[in-house]
Amino acid sequence: MTTPSSPLTHFDAQGQAHMVDVGAKPATRRVAVAAGRIEMQPATLALIASGTAKKGDVLTVADVAAVMAAKRTPDLIPMCHSLALTGVDVDFSEIVEPDAEGCVGIQVTTTARCVGQTGVEMEALTAASAALLTIYDMCKAADRRMVMTGVRVLEKHGGKSGSFVA
Amino acid sequence: MTTPSSPLTHFDAQGQAHMVDVGAKPATRRVAVAAGRIEMQPATLALIASGTAKKGDVLTVADVAAVMAAKRTPDLIPMCHSLALTGVDVDFSEIVEPDAEGCVGIQVTTTARCVGQTGVEMEALTAASAALLTIYDMCKAADRRMVMTGVRVLEKHGGKSGSFVA
Amino acid sequence: MTTPSSPLTHFDAQGQAHMVDVGAKPATRRVAVAAGRIEMQPATLALIASGTAKKGDVLTVADVAAVMAAKRTPDLIPMCHSLALTGVDVDFSEIVEPDAEGCVGIQVTTTARCVGQTGVEMEALTAASAALLTIYDMCKAADRRMVMTGVRVLEKHGGKSGSFVA
Amino acid sequence: MTTPSSPLTHFDAQGQAHMVDVGAKPATRRVAVAAGRIEMQPATLALIASGTAKKGDVLTVADVAAVMAAKRTPDLIPMCHSLALTGVDVDFSEIVEPDAEGCVGIQVTTTARCVGQTGVEMEALTAASAALLTIYDMCKAADRRMVMTGVRVLEKHGGKSGSFVA
Amino acid sequence: MTTPSSPLTHFDAQGQAHMVDVGAKPATRRVAVAAGRIEMQPATLALIASGTAKKGDVLTVADVAAVMAAKRTPDLIPMCHSLALTGVDVDFSEIVEPDAEGCVGIQVTTTARCVGQTGVEMEALTAASAALLTIYDMCKAADRRMVMTGVRVLEKHGGKSGSFVA
Amino acid sequence: MTTPSSPLTHFDAQGQAHMVDVGAKPATRRVAVAAGRIEMQPATLALIASGTAKKGDVLTVADVAAVMAAKRTPDLIPMCHSLALTGVDVDFSEIVEPDAEGCVGIQVTTTARCVGQTGVEMEALTAASAALLTIYDMCKAADRRMVMTGVRVLEKHGGKSGSFVA
Repeated sequence: MTTPSSPLTHFDAQGQAHMVDVGAKPATRRVAVAAGRIEMQPATLALIASGTAKKGDVLTVADVAAVMAAKRTPDLIPMCHSLALTGVDVDFSEIVEPDAEGCVGIQVTTTARCVGQTGVEMEALTAASAALLTIYDMCKAADRRMVMTGVRVLEKHGGKSGSFVA
Repeated sequence: MTTPSSPLTHFDAQGQAHMVDVGAKPATRRVAVAAGRIEMQPATLALIASGTAKKGDVLTVADVAAVMAAKRTPDLIPMCHSLALTGVDVDFSEIVEPDAEGCVGIQVTTTARCVGQTGVEMEALTAASAALLTIYDMCKAADRRMVMTGVRVLEKHGGKSGSFVA
Repeated sequence: MTTPSSPLTHFDAQGQAHMVDVGAKPATRRVAVAAGRIEMQPATLALIASGTAKKGDVLTVADVAAVMAAKRTPDLIPMCHSLALTGVDVDFSEIVEPDAEGCVGIQVTTTARCVGQTGVEMEALTAASAALLTIYDMCKAADRRMVMTGVRVLEKHGGKSGSFVA
Repeated sequence: MTTPSSPLTHFDAQGQAHMVDVGAKPATRRVAVAAGRIEMQPATLALIASGTAKKGDVLTVADVAAVMAAKRTPDLIPMCHSLALTGVDVDFSEIVEPDAEGCVGIQVTTTARCVGQTGVEMEALTAASAALLTIYDMCKAADRRMVMTGVRVLEKHGGKSGSFVA
Repeated sequence: MTTPSSPLTHFDAQGQAHMVDVGAKPATRRVAVAAGRIEMQPATLALIASGTAKKGDVLTVADVAAVMAAKRTPDLIPMCHSLALTGVDVDFSEIVEPDAEGCVGIQVTTTARCVGQTGVEMEALTAASAALLTIYDMCKAADRRMVMTGVRVLEKHGGKSGSFVA
Repeated sequence: MTTPSSPLTHFDAQGQAHMVDVGAKPATRRVAVAAGRIEMQPATLALIASGTAKKGDVLTVADVAAVMAAKRTPDLIPMCHSLALTGVDVDFSEIVEPDAEGCVGIQVTTTARCVGQTGVEMEALTAASAALLTIYDMCKAADRRMVMTGVRVLEKHGGKSGSFVA
């Protein structure tokens, strides 16, 4: 576990929220991997799985939403820097083993990359959240009790602070 | 627990994803309440709490991000209808009791309202997700292991399907 | 064929471009259907067709792009009114018969609906254009000579001017 | 004519749509030129031409729409990379010779430039489409049968694949 | 002069910023008129004036920017409601009489209209600001010392609080 | 005072508005500082000041709006280049000395930074305007006669033209 020691850099010396200046940092290759999952009834997962094969594709829509949301991250997260992502990957896997409450689900893993002066973990996290929200939207007519959970950074590389692996 | 029974309405008869036509539905007053939380080290929560009082305000920034994201929901969730929200509320509360892993956190509860032909649960969920992502962003210099979790609809009123309370 | 007789309503009496006031018009149900096509090499069409079945889905990505672009129409077309679309449909069909230059292609047909004071033909046309542009983007690594063509309004209903069918 | 030989790079090995990683490609100067036209009744073209001189300016509005749309390309085309355009030019010319159906029109030619890791043909094509859609919108009160057509890449320079001229 | 007497309605009882619920208010026709001006060197104004006639049109570009910004108001002003503007007008006039510092300028007057539950003064003010910022941008190569000033609401009609004329 | 001498670079040789090509310019560190103020009744300023301490925070909301608007500048100002800001600062100070009309107010000063091929004065000006518009919005229930004024560039550094200090 990490011990919080650094200040909240998004506030300046007067305590005013700002977009911290990264202009003096070198541009390095950055990558961040995030993940999250949405828990649902087994019958809902079956609908998604059958849909993929036969008549529609919940996960392709969620994939597109995730990539587009990654690009919109600075529009959504107030103090995030704009940056030019060089790549975004979105992968889904089914969670077929029911948990204590009988729920199964979909796990999403997102990877964001750039060559720049700031990390891309917010882009990866935003992509994962958008994927989960889209799955909720596409399936809510069948199941309103779905829960999006466990959204976190799995790993992060590049920049002064080096690599982080959860 | 709900039993999924309805089809996935965001696909048409040919299985093509579409924005389902709601033009014939009456406009009714709609409200949806969503919630979620972000788990963190106690020292991170202490930074947020002190910041609120003394020198900055993580939660006001997250509040603004949530309200703005609620308005951007149709830009983020592909098959969501555009609608004119009549109100958005965002409330935060501290989770001070540590869980099994020693984590405390912030709980966010969001309320979205409109008078319209479709529900506003996606707006409430998107607001909650944006609030949590913004807290992550504002505090990530201190704690990279924060986890966003339990994002779900608490209740929903209005429209043909009536009230839902989780 | 129509005979242009009306003035260009997007200019005021001084010739300044403006968003014409529709506040006194009654809200009626509106629908517009637009179409367009992208012409390509037969081998490119084969790639799209095989992709749909086996390993990816160019047309689902184009479908999502079209629906999202329909919602963004007032951000793109300067004098267009913002309006709340009640539904958007996007349909694709393959053009398998080669034209004089040996090209086949994909035809897109889009339908936009709203209950409002202005027509939705710009939303349908913008959706069709976005679908074609996305197909171009997804396939340009294989074929740079694709041409987007024949983007037009097929029909339009609702409002004072009544129905139009091309 | 080109022979499609490369795979559809916007899909990964699992067939999932992704934003392909360009982080290892060198940044080079890129330019792309696209074109398209809108066909209309001679009387409609006369309205545009007279408007330019006397009382308003359809083509300046379309020019602005094109430049702004070029900047929004990654918001519209799902798998497009965000990039910082260094320049955008939009030129219009009148097509005064009637075609077989008696139509004349406006030709738009757009040029997009950047220094980056990916090409800018989507930006040029999106600008051209937005210009044509805006002309349609500005003139639709006079002529609903206008058709946007022939939207294509004329040339493209820079990057590993070198120059392309249609 | 007005005497401030009402609370700041954008904060709830706990002092949290929110988008105040207007769902119970009747929809009425609303109009707001705002104005502002940009002060500049006489030679800069001469450039704009000559440009209008001969070779380009600063004010048409500013007009388009103003109308588009009016539509984007809820994306820019955090607690503003989304609403469907029914009309936007933008008018410019030259200020040819030099002030005490020898400056002349351009005056912009904007009118925003909707049928809705909230006023449109923010839309009119945002349009005016965008027009002035665009004039600055278009002319800054010639004159960096331009000043945007006097941006205010001139009048406002509709809604419970009735008419306001400055 | 400056003497306008350069042409309006946002128009090409044919007088068509364009985004001027900066691709051949070297990337240098850029900074721009802008300022503006909003004038209001003393009682309105007292509400803001008390709000900051006790129950809400007009200025934090305005700060967030300013930073987010700075990032949206190329979406608002038609011929502005997209660029990746490396930092944005927003500072507020109270103007407590009444002017001739008895008004006091809030002064905003914004700083925008990037490493790039074009200046960032439009980003600083847009941030200042958004801050003032947001203060107006947050306080308009108490005082409709507030005036936003004196929005200008204070200084600008970097690039071929060197430093400018007003």
